Amino acid sequence: MNDTSFIQSIQQAIRSVIGSGRAGLHEPNFDGNEWLYLRDCLDSTYVSSVGKYVDRFEAELAEVTGARHVVAVVNGTAALHIALKMAGVKPNDEVLVPALTFVATSNAVNYCGAIPHFVDSDSYTLGVDAVKLRNYLTENTEQKSGHCFNLETGRVIRALVPMHTFGHPADLDGLLAISRDFNIAMVEDAAESLGSFYHGKHTGTFGLLGTLSFNGNKTITTGGGGAILTNSAEIARYAKHITTTAKLPHVWDFRHDEVGYNYRLPNLNAALGCAQLEKLPAKLINKRELFFRYDAAFAKLPGVKLMSEPSSCQSNYWMQTLILDADYADQRDAILKSTNESGLMTRPAWILMNELTPYKSCPRMDLTVAQSLSQRLINIPSSPQLLIAKT
Amino acid sequence: MNDTSFIQSIQQAIRSVIGSGRAGLHEPNFDGNEWLYLRDCLDSTYVSSVGKYVDRFEAELAEVTGARHVVAVVNGTAALHIALKMAGVKPNDEVLVPALTFVATSNAVNYCGAIPHFVDSDSYTLGVDAVKLRNYLTENTEQKSGHCFNLETGRVIRALVPMHTFGHPADLDGLLAISRDFNIAMVEDAAESLGSFYHGKHTGTFGLLGTLSFNGNKTITTGGGGAILTNSAEIARYAKHITTTAKLPHVWDFRHDEVGYNYRLPNLNAALGCAQLEKLPAKLINKRELFFRYDAAFAKLPGVKLMSEPSSCQSNYWMQTLILDADYADQRDAILKSTNESGLMTRPAWILMNELTPYKSCPRMDLTVAQSLSQRLINIPSSPQLLIAKT
Repeated sequence: MNDTSFIQSIQQAIRSVIGSGRAGLHEPNFDGNEWLYLRDCLDSTYVSSVGKYVDRFEAELAEVTGARHVVAVVNGTAALHIALKMAGVKPNDEVLVPALTFVATSNAVNYCGAIPHFVDSDSYTLGVDAVKLRNYLTENTEQKSGHCFNLETGRVIRALVPMHTFGHPADLDGLLAISRDFNIAMVEDAAESLGSFYHGKHTGTFGLLGTLSFNGNKTITTGGGGAILTNSAEIARYAKHITTTAKLPHVWDFRHDEVGYNYRLPNLNAALGCAQLEKLPAKLINKRELFFRYDAAFAKLPGVKLMSEPSSCQSNYWMQTLILDADYADQRDAILKSTNESGLMTRPAWILMNELTPYKSCPRMDLTVAQSLSQRLINIPSSPQLLIAKT
Repeated sequence: MNDTSFIQSIQQAIRSVIGSGRAGLHEPNFDGNEWLYLRDCLDSTYVSSVGKYVDRFEAELAEVTGARHVVAVVNGTAALHIALKMAGVKPNDEVLVPALTFVATSNAVNYCGAIPHFVDSDSYTLGVDAVKLRNYLTENTEQKSGHCFNLETGRVIRALVPMHTFGHPADLDGLLAISRDFNIAMVEDAAESLGSFYHGKHTGTFGLLGTLSFNGNKTITTGGGGAILTNSAEIARYAKHITTTAKLPHVWDFRHDEVGYNYRLPNLNAALGCAQLEKLPAKLINKRELFFRYDAAFAKLPGVKLMSEPSSCQSNYWMQTLILDADYADQRDAILKSTNESGLMTRPAWILMNELTPYKSCPRMDLTVAQSLSQRLINIPSSPQLLIAKT
């Protein structure tokens, strides 16, 4: 197939599933109780940091994910920042972070005064490669007084932050074993994977803490929002305390016992979240159906495959993702250009963290797979309502 | 007057203005276009970090305050954090902060890796005492290569953050002169003073930057929200860049040129803000009228006076504030207890920053006035709609 017809075939395959017209990458949809709850929230006058919708949103997220405790916060970045602090990340620590992730993962490490240490991905899950990471840590770290030290930098490697890329669960068994064997706390960045399960258990609930995001482009949205998941009552209490300015309870006194943050999710945004969460099952069904249709459309196309959920996993299919064969990687930008120009919003994977100016000098392992993947991934229109529009 | 009758007189004076029933300290009120704009925002599907309400809210805040540029963010704390960064505050710098302020002022300094240096208040404005500060800086600092150095710690004093306490403008002429004479950038914490003017010009527009808050207890609310004010187009551009993950504009590439923040105000919250802002003039009129009625009620009561706006200033009267005479300071807690128990929400000033565990060891000047004030201030019910309820 020549280049032009390859690009055209991809465009046609997408169009065959979602029909004509413009299509965003992932657009929110408000066909449930959103208006009702927003109105109720306004009528209550509790739109800010206290209110029943925040409590309800946290309780319902706990039910959906199976996490024992949930603390709602202003966004996924804030959730990661606090989760890392709760995991004991301190200035000058190192934190293992996939090179292939959104910049928030690295930024949250930076906010703690710590240094991201970039690790490679596995082309099967798009998440951290547990086998490669174990070998790397075995060769490059040593255990001293119960901590994992980087032999080269002398710094403690305090945490590992797997990210469930585009909603596909990483190799959590392999990563949990590393966390245990090397004394490195695991904090899951589940920003993209609400509704994704690994061996029947929700992502974000395997590590000491997990985090979610409800940004406008996510499976459900609160405008801006995020959440911290944990099974530890003590960590949850502390996370809530530190995200609400670390103020000690008192009728009138303003006593704050440490440096806290103003990270509490407003009740207004939680009201939207409660309505959105009710529609999560329907959204997940539609997103899965969209995958099946794309899969059929791309099945016979050489040079490209559609990313499907890892075995024994149930992905939320947040972002439908094409993976170009290595031979076709040089066509990526032409495909992005052509689809975006024709009204189909598509995008590549993120530029690798180690290639960004602020993180260029951070430690890293060999990143061959992440480098290859970052040149070959393309997200295509993934809104669950695209299906409804077509049918 | 004996203690019991003093406490009773205060309670009666408050009741004579706002009538019977429970009264919060400052409650939001949504009797404008809040529903309309929230609904429109939902219908547009743009509830998150992009949308017309964010742009409109910024433009309207610019008009109300006279600031040339406004950048809306998730809350007042985030606004202060970024404003300090924009003012050049770096790790190990010192920042002059009133001891008498809400903890966010100090926390924002801490987020920059800098150290708050606490300064005293003036009992006339409740803000930073410019005369005392000038004397202190003259004796305790030296100028080297255009920077102000603390002689004792050797650190650069990079910024000065006056806060307009309870909505009353600080001595901005005096403080601006210090900023100029000592090469210390001024960043105004105008979280409490939307609608307050100093010599006819809006607070928050005198310094290099200013910040606002729209928390649920503020004069207008967005649920959670804040804004950065500046007259510099360059600073505004940079503030917007760094509050939106420092992503460089591109159709599909994710290139971030520095460590950024996820601090953008969601469009949903901005929609609420636009409706609230339309009601600001009416709220300010009611708050001023509430002041006049309280003032009359407290006029003849010995031992206590109501805080009124400094001369040549127009305060928003965010929080109506009683100042107990020194002889009556020991009655403060009994007044707080009695009023709160009878359904009148009151509160004292914040515990001084230098008395909080995380900031105990920070540098400070003599804080005699702040110490005295912090024992003698009581905020009383201040919602603008209290007046409407009574009449």
